[in-house]
Amino acid sequence: MATHIIGGALPTMPWQDKPADCVGPLWRDDRNPIIGWNPTPKMARVFNSAVVPWGEGFIGVFRADHRDGKPLLHVGRSQNALDWEFENEEIHFVDEPGADYQPNYAYDPRVVKIEDTYYVTWCTDFGGPALGLASTTDFVTFVRMENICTPYNRNGVLFPRKIDGKFVLLTRPSDAGHTAFGDIFISQSPDLVHWGRHRRVMSTGDTWWQALKIGAGAPPIETDEGWLLFYHGVTNTCNGYVYSYGAVLLDLENPDRVLHRTYNYLLTPEKDYETNGFVPNVAFPCSVLVDAPTGRIAIYYGAADTYTAVAYAQVDELIAHIKADSRLVPGDADEFR
Amino acid sequence: MATHIIGGALPTMPWQDKPADCVGPLWRDDRNPIIGWNPTPKMARVFNSAVVPWGEGFIGVFRADHRDGKPLLHVGRSQNALDWEFENEEIHFVDEPGADYQPNYAYDPRVVKIEDTYYVTWCTDFGGPALGLASTTDFVTFVRMENICTPYNRNGVLFPRKIDGKFVLLTRPSDAGHTAFGDIFISQSPDLVHWGRHRRVMSTGDTWWQALKIGAGAPPIETDEGWLLFYHGVTNTCNGYVYSYGAVLLDLENPDRVLHRTYNYLLTPEKDYETNGFVPNVAFPCSVLVDAPTGRIAIYYGAADTYTAVAYAQVDELIAHIKADSRLVPGDADEFR
Amino acid sequence: MATHIIGGALPTMPWQDKPADCVGPLWRDDRNPIIGWNPTPKMARVFNSAVVPWGEGFIGVFRADHRDGKPLLHVGRSQNALDWEFENEEIHFVDEPGADYQPNYAYDPRVVKIEDTYYVTWCTDFGGPALGLASTTDFVTFVRMENICTPYNRNGVLFPRKIDGKFVLLTRPSDAGHTAFGDIFISQSPDLVHWGRHRRVMSTGDTWWQALKIGAGAPPIETDEGWLLFYHGVTNTCNGYVYSYGAVLLDLENPDRVLHRTYNYLLTPEKDYETNGFVPNVAFPCSVLVDAPTGRIAIYYGAADTYTAVAYAQVDELIAHIKADSRLVPGDADEFR
Amino acid sequence: MATHIIGGALPTMPWQDKPADCVGPLWRDDRNPIIGWNPTPKMARVFNSAVVPWGEGFIGVFRADHRDGKPLLHVGRSQNALDWEFENEEIHFVDEPGADYQPNYAYDPRVVKIEDTYYVTWCTDFGGPALGLASTTDFVTFVRMENICTPYNRNGVLFPRKIDGKFVLLTRPSDAGHTAFGDIFISQSPDLVHWGRHRRVMSTGDTWWQALKIGAGAPPIETDEGWLLFYHGVTNTCNGYVYSYGAVLLDLENPDRVLHRTYNYLLTPEKDYETNGFVPNVAFPCSVLVDAPTGRIAIYYGAADTYTAVAYAQVDELIAHIKADSRLVPGDADEFR
Amino acid sequence: MATHIIGGALPTMPWQDKPADCVGPLWRDDRNPIIGWNPTPKMARVFNSAVVPWGEGFIGVFRADHRDGKPLLHVGRSQNALDWEFENEEIHFVDEPGADYQPNYAYDPRVVKIEDTYYVTWCTDFGGPALGLASTTDFVTFVRMENICTPYNRNGVLFPRKIDGKFVLLTRPSDAGHTAFGDIFISQSPDLVHWGRHRRVMSTGDTWWQALKIGAGAPPIETDEGWLLFYHGVTNTCNGYVYSYGAVLLDLENPDRVLHRTYNYLLTPEKDYETNGFVPNVAFPCSVLVDAPTGRIAIYYGAADTYTAVAYAQVDELIAHIKADSRLVPGDADEFR
Amino acid sequence: MATHIIGGALPTMPWQDKPADCVGPLWRDDRNPIIGWNPTPKMARVFNSAVVPWGEGFIGVFRADHRDGKPLLHVGRSQNALDWEFENEEIHFVDEPGADYQPNYAYDPRVVKIEDTYYVTWCTDFGGPALGLASTTDFVTFVRMENICTPYNRNGVLFPRKIDGKFVLLTRPSDAGHTAFGDIFISQSPDLVHWGRHRRVMSTGDTWWQALKIGAGAPPIETDEGWLLFYHGVTNTCNGYVYSYGAVLLDLENPDRVLHRTYNYLLTPEKDYETNGFVPNVAFPCSVLVDAPTGRIAIYYGAADTYTAVAYAQVDELIAHIKADSRLVPGDADEFR
Repeated sequence: MATHIIGGALPTMPWQDKPADCVGPLWRDDRNPIIGWNPTPKMARVFNSAVVPWGEGFIGVFRADHRDGKPLLHVGRSQNALDWEFENEEIHFVDEPGADYQPNYAYDPRVVKIEDTYYVTWCTDFGGPALGLASTTDFVTFVRMENICTPYNRNGVLFPRKIDGKFVLLTRPSDAGHTAFGDIFISQSPDLVHWGRHRRVMSTGDTWWQALKIGAGAPPIETDEGWLLFYHGVTNTCNGYVYSYGAVLLDLENPDRVLHRTYNYLLTPEKDYETNGFVPNVAFPCSVLVDAPTGRIAIYYGAADTYTAVAYAQVDELIAHIKADSRLVPGDADEFR
Repeated sequence: MATHIIGGALPTMPWQDKPADCVGPLWRDDRNPIIGWNPTPKMARVFNSAVVPWGEGFIGVFRADHRDGKPLLHVGRSQNALDWEFENEEIHFVDEPGADYQPNYAYDPRVVKIEDTYYVTWCTDFGGPALGLASTTDFVTFVRMENICTPYNRNGVLFPRKIDGKFVLLTRPSDAGHTAFGDIFISQSPDLVHWGRHRRVMSTGDTWWQALKIGAGAPPIETDEGWLLFYHGVTNTCNGYVYSYGAVLLDLENPDRVLHRTYNYLLTPEKDYETNGFVPNVAFPCSVLVDAPTGRIAIYYGAADTYTAVAYAQVDELIAHIKADSRLVPGDADEFR
Repeated sequence: MATHIIGGALPTMPWQDKPADCVGPLWRDDRNPIIGWNPTPKMARVFNSAVVPWGEGFIGVFRADHRDGKPLLHVGRSQNALDWEFENEEIHFVDEPGADYQPNYAYDPRVVKIEDTYYVTWCTDFGGPALGLASTTDFVTFVRMENICTPYNRNGVLFPRKIDGKFVLLTRPSDAGHTAFGDIFISQSPDLVHWGRHRRVMSTGDTWWQALKIGAGAPPIETDEGWLLFYHGVTNTCNGYVYSYGAVLLDLENPDRVLHRTYNYLLTPEKDYETNGFVPNVAFPCSVLVDAPTGRIAIYYGAADTYTAVAYAQVDELIAHIKADSRLVPGDADEFR
Repeated sequence: MATHIIGGALPTMPWQDKPADCVGPLWRDDRNPIIGWNPTPKMARVFNSAVVPWGEGFIGVFRADHRDGKPLLHVGRSQNALDWEFENEEIHFVDEPGADYQPNYAYDPRVVKIEDTYYVTWCTDFGGPALGLASTTDFVTFVRMENICTPYNRNGVLFPRKIDGKFVLLTRPSDAGHTAFGDIFISQSPDLVHWGRHRRVMSTGDTWWQALKIGAGAPPIETDEGWLLFYHGVTNTCNGYVYSYGAVLLDLENPDRVLHRTYNYLLTPEKDYETNGFVPNVAFPCSVLVDAPTGRIAIYYGAADTYTAVAYAQVDELIAHIKADSRLVPGDADEFR
Repeated sequence: MATHIIGGALPTMPWQDKPADCVGPLWRDDRNPIIGWNPTPKMARVFNSAVVPWGEGFIGVFRADHRDGKPLLHVGRSQNALDWEFENEEIHFVDEPGADYQPNYAYDPRVVKIEDTYYVTWCTDFGGPALGLASTTDFVTFVRMENICTPYNRNGVLFPRKIDGKFVLLTRPSDAGHTAFGDIFISQSPDLVHWGRHRRVMSTGDTWWQALKIGAGAPPIETDEGWLLFYHGVTNTCNGYVYSYGAVLLDLENPDRVLHRTYNYLLTPEKDYETNGFVPNVAFPCSVLVDAPTGRIAIYYGAADTYTAVAYAQVDELIAHIKADSRLVPGDADEFR
Repeated sequence: MATHIIGGALPTMPWQDKPADCVGPLWRDDRNPIIGWNPTPKMARVFNSAVVPWGEGFIGVFRADHRDGKPLLHVGRSQNALDWEFENEEIHFVDEPGADYQPNYAYDPRVVKIEDTYYVTWCTDFGGPALGLASTTDFVTFVRMENICTPYNRNGVLFPRKIDGKFVLLTRPSDAGHTAFGDIFISQSPDLVHWGRHRRVMSTGDTWWQALKIGAGAPPIETDEGWLLFYHGVTNTCNGYVYSYGAVLLDLENPDRVLHRTYNYLLTPEKDYETNGFVPNVAFPCSVLVDAPTGRIAIYYGAADTYTAVAYAQVDELIAHIKADSRLVPGDADEFR
């Protein structure tokens, strides 16, 4: 292979070969959507999903919109990462002193394993949407840590290892409502409590599919060509927002620098489960599973804020595509602060 | 039965038993939608529907959006309350002196029988949306009465009997457009002409599915536990409003007091006929049929502002559910004026 | 005189003769503004003012914005109706059973004497702006009655006598915010509790100074030519609303019919105390004093939501002017319901 | 036939007979949508389509939204006008001096043949949406001419012949965004460079389906009863715009005068390919094929900003319908300038 | 002098020498405002004023807001160009065939003399704001010509002579309301009826005082260094728009090219008559008087949409200042079409 | 004195005794405004001003809006803190490595001295408004440090000493425009680079003068009763925002806890220099001078975004007033994170 994923083998991850008639470097699982309406009594819709390998199988933290309309986080387990069993009860956090803590709402989780701990970031209620942080080692006890920032921020995604001794985080500063703007920023922390050395990583630019706002999707995949990040981009039609996604390669040591960035989306809502649902026309990636030896990548994305779907790519083909399709916007390649 | 509906038998009302895999207390008819596109030359979409028993069968007043885009009211007749025959000509009202009267538009009718007269309330054009009122005894002649209020108001629903000697009405004060707020109020009248003693019955609260606005749905069902009211609740996504519905029990004698109120919705748009149409993601109840001996309830609701659909519940199970699921918001249990 | 005011003498009312260089039928008092900033410790700005004769002097109910920013109602007393003494404590209402009642906010009062009682209408908090009603005979005890309507309504103005045995009220249905539309409606009541027979009296039309919204100002003055009503009209510039005022003659027996209506404003903000203040460019009449024998009229209007000012007119000249300047808009002369 | 289309025979145009259960004068092809997602590597969605006869077959200029989200114009060719082959490369214009020219975006093309030249009008980027104009005789070289107007304008449609020696054009003046208003205007030019004698042809009126804005659709069809124009009309729901279409007959010699105009829409989004896609609920006609001897008309319209669809009408029936259904709004029949 | 105005002498034009403490190249007349409230019975505010020399004195076309709030055009005459006498009756146009014509509203006139005719451009009602055009030779008869464009456009300013045989016009395309964007465009016409060869002359750029929108002010002054144009620029504060003005030098032969452009405003609202009035914080130039031998320039500008004011500059100093202060934005120096 | 300011003597600070007729605990200097229009060639308006004692006199960092409309920071010097001399050239920062740095805009500075260094916080351009930080020891060289946060944030105010070993900062998270919401948050830092342990300090509550948003004003004054903080509160009228200010006492050791908070504003725009200018109706405090032995406080506040003004208070009287007038809103007294 031309490009190597830095990481272990995951032969049990889901996979389907690329269909003959598929043009681009990404293809959907034909069993989509893998999670439908009302999987448990409390959970109405499960869409933005953060899955990781766990033992012989898989585990994840899932956004579930409850029947009261509010989103909370739930644990789910699976043998094959396609058929999921959920805990009907949402995650109940404990504070560092051990007291119960439950945010008023919690959505769009991402999970990364750094060293031996799993960290969950999510959009939490801090008198407005902000970024919550918790750790777990067993997916039973989730210890809530300090909120990462003041409101208003969403789409906080941690890198899966420290860089230059610091924890590193992508965020998408936003506003109090259905934010109509948004770039991706990066911040560092020595201790996961205090954050600084903020830089703007990427701007929207004038490519229409990502002209309104962009946000980090799944945790970056380390490759020998850079950090491979799937990110969503949003355009604004007369009938609402459309969420597509693309990918970007960030410099390994200076991840605030963009090396290559898809000029075209990789996936846009086309299937009925993507164009039709609670929020039509949304494809929103939150996690990946990768198998380093084969370069296989499975992307988990929320569809129409209603379903969970999976798409696949192979790392060589994908990175070759990103390079060929790349067009940077001002500031992508430079440090902006 | 634990709870009794105060009313007569209606063994001919439509019914399907609850499917084995249904979790909540409400289930859809699998023949939905029961009314589709273009049932008559003038009528394009028939959705918000007010049906009542009539002779051996059923009759109703239906909102039909015409091919000019404007909604007017039509009479429909049915043997089984599922297959409907419509009058292609809209209702032509007469004023109390007998002169013709036709509002510029008329939508979202409700029908109640009080003593021997059927009263129709609807959203009428009074230099802005307001509440129209008419009476009929034969569904041929509809006598228009005084408008109930000045603009801007919608979702006027009469109680099916006088309470303490007064006619009683629920309304949802609103604004001139796609109102982004709204609570349910109650008013009294000695004569159906003058209205007063207004109270706020229910507020939106912070439950997301009903956080933007709420409005009375079908005429309240009298039970020995209180007035059972289905009401819609609306949430605001980045791609538009979503209308779900829940239920509430109001005090029999002081119907401005909430006894119990569903914290979770009872039904939210999930089916293609609910999520996909002229206005995606709308479920909007306007009438019920009930059979007191069996406690069966059929709820008629508009779907996607395009179709008419039916769902069922059994009164014991439903009221037990409402009580178990109830959470009041400030003012629900108190008098607010 | 050509036109007679139906009413008593009030020789002590304030007056200044018309300046030689004044073109229109209205002129300002050169002592304006008559009430400035911070007249008492609690009251910051006193502007929309409802004054009436009282004994040898005058009394009134005044909107005072407190230093917390909220408006409440205060009683003020004056010998000459120009120099006012205010009660620092706001009006504390009692409910009809005698319990204390204090609305969260109260603004834009109007006062009329009907038979031997003074009635105060104001914009009250009813989960949104609505119309409050209270009665007093001594300006010490104010008995709160039923709210006149559900939200959202403002500018409720009672006629100073029953017409055809009914109390009659003008209102301006509105929305929950800085309403960008609004016509004047009229309603009747047999008992001041229940209201009905609503009609639209006047619409905005396309005259720019009153194109956005209009609202009744002072209580109508009975003349032998009709009810003389001062009303405000609002236009919308790129830098905000501008409130001017004009006048209208309504039919004595059918006050939902407009006989004559000023095509041009009578007064628009020109003076520094009208164009510069808390809300620049507001002239907002709330009350009048009239002397029937001389036909003198003093109009009390709020200026810039900061000051109280007075203007004068003589009834013959004014009504001749209104007739000469009159242009009706569709519906003015007809009944609309 | 009662009405004759002025034009030639086109026996190869697509056609399906009217289904027995079709009520109105228009019916859809049951093979719709005729163009789906991703027909070539660059083209994601092909919807607003301008087709013309070409040799033994057909050719067209198509709006294709690329995978970067931006629309550009592409040439397509077909034998039967249903199955289309597209050039993956977008049209590259040359300026009149022969230099390359590529607008930043280009959408919603219309094509007319005047004398021996084909003219393309489209919505072009001129620091805001404006009307581009180009000519071609071979659909290989497209010569860009002067922009027709300053921004902001859309839906420019040329008449297929000069009238009174002048080129004549319909336009829809708009604003910089998702314009919430819009009437149809007409302009003349002696030379396709300078335009003047502007008149307003049609206004929205208060028919709901066309109450928000209207715009010319396909190039007018010359008949002995007048110019037959399909035009779109838009209504605004709480969940976005809905685009339907109707038709109008304009005076042959004074095409700024409306003779007859459909009060009801001819087609509104009903099918899944019309209600569900990138922009739900859009039906947007851009071209027609006609066969004069038989009076057959095929209308090409974009569906949901995602698909291309075809509907049929027969000219006699259609024009009889338009006359029967006609209701003019103020100014339709008069000259307005 | 370094720079020469191409034109005649006008020794009677108003003038005041530059005050010693004035820093920039522009200074106000200390007799400002020269026109106040209510100069005639019909006219309330006279602000945006187009004055020209006339015989021994001066004449002008003035925007006057009437007491109905609507703006119309009035003729005014003056000996010294400071003290003005107005015709109380607005201009009544005749059409080219001689029929009466009166637009619903007319505002912001500019007047230029080309050869022996005076042309008036203004913002006219064409179902939305558009550009009206009329000619006069005596300021008694004004012959209305064809509207220059379809809506929505404002601030049309003709050059005072043909360039390369064509009439040339600056415009500011806009929208239907308080337009929140706007660049200056240029168009040509052979006959004052048909207009084409549109180019964008100037964009807003990111200089804050002109970041929201810009528009041509007075007719360009021909100098041997280029066309000297005063233009307004607008910024948007939380309390509304602020209109300042600057100047630009356009190429004599290719007036779509900017040679120099003030980076800083020349005048911003500072005086009470500029910051306080009907629309606070507006300074809006519409005409100039110039004396070529001395290089004196008097700029007439509307203040606060309420008053007319005058400022002065000397051409050498001004043009030296413009050059020194110049900073172009992308497209200023290039042709954009 | 009952309350002691913890700090040194500053006998040279400006002062005027309280006027006899002043009711509240704050009074204006009658020489206001102390800084007017155009003090230097580059500076148009100097309003939000951060002054500190310096040697025998005073120095400050001032927001100056330039004639291009953009705000930058300037140094000013004064002997008496009333008459100021400004450097015409804005502050040119150097980065920590010594490279030049100039933000695109910079406004609303605050200055605190912590140990021997002066720190400037301001609203800086970081692809949206964020908080800049710089240090200086001589007011000649300003070393730019890391931006404190990602956008969007304003009104960053440092405490004048470390608390519990940490730097502590107040901020007002906001959005990209004229933010219509906003609470005050607090953050800690060990190193002025990384920030965390964010808490919400205060919310807007329902007091009208501060109902829209609030923001920290001057750096907190340490007293033996707590940190005394002046903060602004904003209300929204139909003609724009009105900025008033009040004060709050924060717990000395846990400054995220509110001890007392003014229910009423201390100062609201009343004077012509506060109600009339570039942004009417703004009073915006940014700094204080205090004399501990006498308890004198001088508050520097921007007026109408145009002028600098000064008001005075005496610490005993002020704190007694705050306690007497205090009313907390939910969360004020508790930790919220």
